[in-house]
Amino acid sequence: MIGLGLIGGSVLRAAAAAGRTAWGATDSTVDAEAAVADGFTATVDVAGALRDAAERDAIVVLAVPLPAVERVLPLVAEHAPNCLLTDVTSVKVPVLDVVGRRLPDARFCGGHPMAGTAESGWAAGSATLFSGAAWVVCVEDDTDLDVWREVAALALDAGAHVVPTNAAAHDEVVARISHLPHLMAGVLAAVGAVGGPLAAALAAGSFRDGTRVAGSHPELVRAMTEGNRASLLPVLDEALGRLGAARGSLASTGGLAATIDAGHEGIRELDKYASAPHTGVRVDLGAPDARVGLLALGERGGRITALDGDVLTGEVR
Amino acid sequence: MIGLGLIGGSVLRAAAAAGRTAWGATDSTVDAEAAVADGFTATVDVAGALRDAAERDAIVVLAVPLPAVERVLPLVAEHAPNCLLTDVTSVKVPVLDVVGRRLPDARFCGGHPMAGTAESGWAAGSATLFSGAAWVVCVEDDTDLDVWREVAALALDAGAHVVPTNAAAHDEVVARISHLPHLMAGVLAAVGAVGGPLAAALAAGSFRDGTRVAGSHPELVRAMTEGNRASLLPVLDEALGRLGAARGSLASTGGLAATIDAGHEGIRELDKYASAPHTGVRVDLGAPDARVGLLALGERGGRITALDGDVLTGEVR
Repeated sequence: MIGLGLIGGSVLRAAAAAGRTAWGATDSTVDAEAAVADGFTATVDVAGALRDAAERDAIVVLAVPLPAVERVLPLVAEHAPNCLLTDVTSVKVPVLDVVGRRLPDARFCGGHPMAGTAESGWAAGSATLFSGAAWVVCVEDDTDLDVWREVAALALDAGAHVVPTNAAAHDEVVARISHLPHLMAGVLAAVGAVGGPLAAALAAGSFRDGTRVAGSHPELVRAMTEGNRASLLPVLDEALGRLGAARGSLASTGGLAATIDAGHEGIRELDKYASAPHTGVRVDLGAPDARVGLLALGERGGRITALDGDVLTGEVR
Repeated sequence: MIGLGLIGGSVLRAAAAAGRTAWGATDSTVDAEAAVADGFTATVDVAGALRDAAERDAIVVLAVPLPAVERVLPLVAEHAPNCLLTDVTSVKVPVLDVVGRRLPDARFCGGHPMAGTAESGWAAGSATLFSGAAWVVCVEDDTDLDVWREVAALALDAGAHVVPTNAAAHDEVVARISHLPHLMAGVLAAVGAVGGPLAAALAAGSFRDGTRVAGSHPELVRAMTEGNRASLLPVLDEALGRLGAARGSLASTGGLAATIDAGHEGIRELDKYASAPHTGVRVDLGAPDARVGLLALGERGGRITALDGDVLTGEVR
């Protein structure tokens, strides 16, 4: 595990709890010392940890913010170039690009566990952070499905279910369901704060819910939103268009039905997907159309919940 | 109580639980029958209920959506013109205006309990809905403080604390901390739904929190947001300006620090107001500067928590 913040620290704990031999390295003395104090193997010697990985043919998991991925990859190239490599960064196309440039022969498969809290650092993590959460494991045209299987196995060991999709689809969807919500929360919080103490005294559920993630560590929010610039821009334009239309309609006719009804309909549609009955599915990674099957499963909102050799089982709604 | 939906039904239950003699009327046969089945006095004869109020010198509470207030006021003027009158509508300037036009001599004082759920109707209500909630009781230049005291006493009996402010300040602040959040939730939900089943599969805390109130009954959201048009428009422009600035910055420099930092700072400021230590306050309604004292208390985020004759006690942070 390279990086022992909230996500990396939680993966390390979860992997160890699943019986895997796991160790971590980080630039942060605070996080490394905290991990050691909690009984884990952790160091600030990233190169040394990578050499251990090469010796033991371990999976290298990059759990550093996107801007740091580029700095860590040369160390991976130098000390553990043949290890399976994955990451848990919140954007996938930029990581795919930088790995392609820095380590074109890497046995790489990107990942993204969809869990987190407003807290950060080793101390905020837990072995159960990923229990019941989605963990995206990317399927690109050239993904080695043996590597994919090992990364999926790690995610399942951590208590997550695996959602197969590709980097581009992932980044477009997380712009909608994570990065835009973080920006909107920031805007709401700033507009709310102009209301001063009276606003604080009157703020109820809608404001508290709508601004909750504005309390997240600004650097982490910047890393994920700025890192997803290409996918976030058109989504931000959609939001601006809808909000501008609401403004125009309120100013001209006084009506907000279109905005409010579209939102209500949207939440009903998403709830319908999320609450539809499950159907069991089975994907054989050895089959010639395995890649197509995985991507189709993800597109339909499906998930992999277990793995036995090359046979994946899961469900789709 | 005129109107026995979520809010009116909850006020009726809370008033009865506090030992008051309370009865309700509504256009909704469903709500009236449900209230009667729960052991309350309720009818669809609004005029009759108002005549009872006039006979017993009761407080008349309008708990109907803003568009219905204008329709109910002529009945109040006809059957209970001398009763104390208040309302629990989510906007205050439009109610003040329509009462001024329809019932210029009313002994009126507007109110707004800041509690609710995504549900609506009698069945969704409860006697404890207002426990620990803020209940705005408006202080205008010409508010009769005897009327104000009686409305405040009802709010306190319902388990709420009273926040004194005027209608204009109320409407401006709720545009920031309630109406804009409802519109933003609608926009987020609509943009998220474009992501289809994969979006539903990956949506985590930030999206669920940010869209929670998009599930509210669209008619109620329309009533409160459209009813607060004058105050909501400039607040919506502030949000559009901030979101547009984020878009411009992301497109040009790739940076979102200004947006994210302002949101983080905003939430810290509001949290600071909300968590500062209390100081006890005392307002004598008989004093010549009572009105000024009440408004200053509200502006500082203060609240009234008890009432003994003309002496109010409360706290400010």
